[in-house]
Amino acid sequence: MIAGLSLPVARVVRDGDVLIRRVAPEDLDAIILLLADDPISAGRGDVAREEDRPAYSAALRWIIDDPGNDLVVAVDRSGAVVGTLQLTVIPGMARRGATRLLVEAVRVASAERSLGIGTALMRWVIDEAAADLGAAMVQLTSDAAREDAHRFYRRLGFVDSHVGFKYSVRTAGETATEGGGFRVAR
Amino acid sequence: MIAGLSLPVARVVRDGDVLIRRVAPEDLDAIILLLADDPISAGRGDVAREEDRPAYSAALRWIIDDPGNDLVVAVDRSGAVVGTLQLTVIPGMARRGATRLLVEAVRVASAERSLGIGTALMRWVIDEAAADLGAAMVQLTSDAAREDAHRFYRRLGFVDSHVGFKYSVRTAGETATEGGGFRVAR
Repeated sequence: MIAGLSLPVARVVRDGDVLIRRVAPEDLDAIILLLADDPISAGRGDVAREEDRPAYSAALRWIIDDPGNDLVVAVDRSGAVVGTLQLTVIPGMARRGATRLLVEAVRVASAERSLGIGTALMRWVIDEAAADLGAAMVQLTSDAAREDAHRFYRRLGFVDSHVGFKYSVRTAGETATEGGGFRVAR
Repeated sequence: MIAGLSLPVARVVRDGDVLIRRVAPEDLDAIILLLADDPISAGRGDVAREEDRPAYSAALRWIIDDPGNDLVVAVDRSGAVVGTLQLTVIPGMARRGATRLLVEAVRVASAERSLGIGTALMRWVIDEAAADLGAAMVQLTSDAAREDAHRFYRRLGFVDSHVGFKYSVRTAGETATEGGGFRVAR
C-alpha cells in the first residue's frame, strides 16, 4: 500500500459512475478473472487456473503489504470490479533525482470497454496520484501488439519514446510449455 | 536496499576486474558525474549542477532506505565508480503472480566503455540478482535513440516486445525550459 494516495475517489463514466479504490484481499478472484479476460495475458499463462491461486494470493498479499506498491480497482455501482491497475513508486537519481510512478497491468473488463473506465483510471494516475506522490514522471510499457492501447496512451499525453525490453528468467524445473507463452531464456 | 541480494561480487572484465557492490552515501558525486557523462541524460537536465545536489542526495537516501530499491555500482581497482544501475523489485499479479525486477539508469563511464563492464553488471542482474529475489522477469526500457544499447540488450537475451511510454508531469511553477528537455505535459 502506498500511503500517500488519496483514495477512494468517485468518477463519472459513460455508463454511470465508478469508484476507484484500493484492492482488498477479497478482490483476489475478480483480479484473477480480469487477467484471464485479456487474450494477451491469457497467452502468457493467466488463465485463472485453480492451481495458480496460491501464487496470485501471495502476490496480492505482498502488494498490499508493500509501501512502494498498490493495486487499484474500479468498481461499478453493483460493487463488481470492472478495471484495475498497479502502481509502483520508484525513487531515482536520473532526471535530477526524479520520482517515477510505474503503471503495470492496466485491465478493463471486456464487457465494459469504451465506457471511459480506463480513461478514468489513467487520468486519476497522471492528474492525482502523481501529484499525491510528487512524481515527475509516469511510465508504463505496453505489449507491441496492443495497438489500441497505444492510441489510448498517446491520447492521454504519453510519449512512446522508449523501447521496452523483457528477459524471462528460466526457473529451475520450468519447461517452455509450462512457461505459458513466455520466451524461455537460455 | 533490497535485502536479498548477494553483494559484493568481483567480476573479470577486459581491463582487469571490477567489484560490483551496493552504493554508499559517499558515492553521490560519482553517480551525479556518471549521469552527466551521458549525452541523453544531460539533455534531460542531468548536468551535475550544484543546485541539483539536494535532489540527488534525497533520492539516493530514499533508494538506500527503500526495501524495494537498490543502486548498484561497479568500481575498478582504484575504487573509482565506473558503472551503475538501479534495481527495483516489483511484486505483481500478472503472469501468474510473477515477481519482476526492473532495471533503470544503466550507465558506464564513457572512458570505460567496451571493456565488458555493462555486460558484467547486466549478467549479474539476470543470472544472479533475479535468482536471489525469485524474479521471473527482468525488464527495462531504453530510449529509442540508444541503438547501441538495444543491440547490447538483445545480445544478452532481452526481447524488445513492448513499447515504453512516458508522461512528464508538469510541476507547479515549472516551465518548459526548466524541465531540462522533458516533454511538458498539459
